[in-house]
Amino acid sequence: MDLAQALLSGNRRALAQALTLVETGGPQARALLGSLFAHTGRAHIIGVTGAPGTGKSTLVAALAAHWRRTGRTVGIIAVDPTSPFTRGAILGDRIRMRALSGDPGTFIRSMASRGRLGGIARATGDAVALLDAAGFDIILVETVGAGQGEVEIAATAHTTIVIETPGAGDDVQAIKAGILEIADLLVVNKADREGADQTVRHLRTMLSLSDLPADGWTPPVLTAVATRSEGIESIVAAAEQHLVYLRESGRFVGREQERAEHELRLILQETVLERVRARVPVSDWETLVAQIASRMIDPYAAADQLLDRMMA
Amino acid sequence: MDLAQALLSGNRRALAQALTLVETGGPQARALLGSLFAHTGRAHIIGVTGAPGTGKSTLVAALAAHWRRTGRTVGIIAVDPTSPFTRGAILGDRIRMRALSGDPGTFIRSMASRGRLGGIARATGDAVALLDAAGFDIILVETVGAGQGEVEIAATAHTTIVIETPGAGDDVQAIKAGILEIADLLVVNKADREGADQTVRHLRTMLSLSDLPADGWTPPVLTAVATRSEGIESIVAAAEQHLVYLRESGRFVGREQERAEHELRLILQETVLERVRARVPVSDWETLVAQIASRMIDPYAAADQLLDRMMA
Repeated sequence: MDLAQALLSGNRRALAQALTLVETGGPQARALLGSLFAHTGRAHIIGVTGAPGTGKSTLVAALAAHWRRTGRTVGIIAVDPTSPFTRGAILGDRIRMRALSGDPGTFIRSMASRGRLGGIARATGDAVALLDAAGFDIILVETVGAGQGEVEIAATAHTTIVIETPGAGDDVQAIKAGILEIADLLVVNKADREGADQTVRHLRTMLSLSDLPADGWTPPVLTAVATRSEGIESIVAAAEQHLVYLRESGRFVGREQERAEHELRLILQETVLERVRARVPVSDWETLVAQIASRMIDPYAAADQLLDRMMA
Repeated sequence: MDLAQALLSGNRRALAQALTLVETGGPQARALLGSLFAHTGRAHIIGVTGAPGTGKSTLVAALAAHWRRTGRTVGIIAVDPTSPFTRGAILGDRIRMRALSGDPGTFIRSMASRGRLGGIARATGDAVALLDAAGFDIILVETVGAGQGEVEIAATAHTTIVIETPGAGDDVQAIKAGILEIADLLVVNKADREGADQTVRHLRTMLSLSDLPADGWTPPVLTAVATRSEGIESIVAAAEQHLVYLRESGRFVGREQERAEHELRLILQETVLERVRARVPVSDWETLVAQIASRMIDPYAAADQLLDRMMA
């Protein structure tokens, strides 16, 4: 049985192997993704983003556990160097995650988040496709929320959950203006801390002041204490409601097309680098790089030269 | 006088106009960068990165003010949605920045940090090139440090300064493993807070345990209270020492080539998207996107199809 067949039949080792393959990239990975792509499109893809220290991973683990209890299968992709899924988990999370990792209805994968820009985003999209093809009902993608990460996640997910914490001060206020644009759900985690009510009010005010598209969905602002699994049920309910909203409003097709366009762009960018690597001798590449470094040629002219050569 | 000439002669309005042009991209931007590229290579490019709330912008402002007092000119590029340079500054920073912005030896530019992945990184590289060509001695690039941002900055800068704060807990510890790989200088800011000594010790221990390349530079761990301009002199001295080290060890050429290769990759990726946009009718692109969204074609096959068509 080939890898694609094994993955489709629910073989976890095949899935793990396929994930490693797509993370590396290359022709085999492309062939695999090509043969599996028609089997994607079933999962509810949920992005979870927030600054370091907001408790993303704990919340993701609690959400996953809740969905498991309702019989749904859950795939988790952590694209975050600070994630306990990725490294050095704190004890509580480790226990939570061990419970998840012993469960055949859960699959956890952390992506190396250090590496070439774009490559990670492309690999994350591919990993989502594999988990989707493997039949997971819910796919949770955890990314650190600061700068590009959160824009990426919104472009990959159907539903984006943005996590804040109480009273994180001025910096957080600055973040929010941008975050409102991508949040489908806002969660104030660690809500047992002082200032939670104020943060909730603040977020609601910002939402009411912002000119969000009046397309029928106002991001709910929810509270949680993920370490004690408090507030998880409401978040799950809101995420499911958001999917219903997307489908009933016809916005789901739009999101799928945005996702497709985003993927196509990333893959075009990866593919051109792969083609250059395959067709341009290393020595020519290195010469060109040295010429840029010594200001003999500008990088735009160098790029044009490479592309013209490949297209000749 | 054309834009490039005006920029080279120190005209600030020309610089501002050129920065807007390269942020947008396109043939005019390419031509401008092409004509200015030979004038780059003089500046010391310094990346400053750290999680939201570590006081990056305040530190950047204090560093800039210090360099100004020693007669050096300073360009600042803020690639950070949470940066006070970008929006909503807190009062103290606003005053600091106003002092800088009234000074002809300082130029501050914030880049919109929301937008297509890769595009921002490419635009940041271009902005650095423009400030370099315009003759600024020091170019400070502030990015939010979490995930990709810091990898990017290390690929763009000669010297990378990573900022931590005391006792930021488990998450920070998790970050550090990755951060050590890119830090040329480590700064514990807000060092008047409890736990600063411990954080410094912790970072030094991590440095001694990590297998950093034994190429002669051990990242110093410094302390600062940026709001009171404490510790700034040592940071400036260490950054200058690092540049001396790069030059004397011969590693400077290597860094310049890494920078060149990074730029070339980003620009290749941008260029291929531009060429596709220019040569593929919008309706064909939209059809392809719709076919991906409905799983009729996988995005890898679609990308190959587009590239083959352009190369035919």
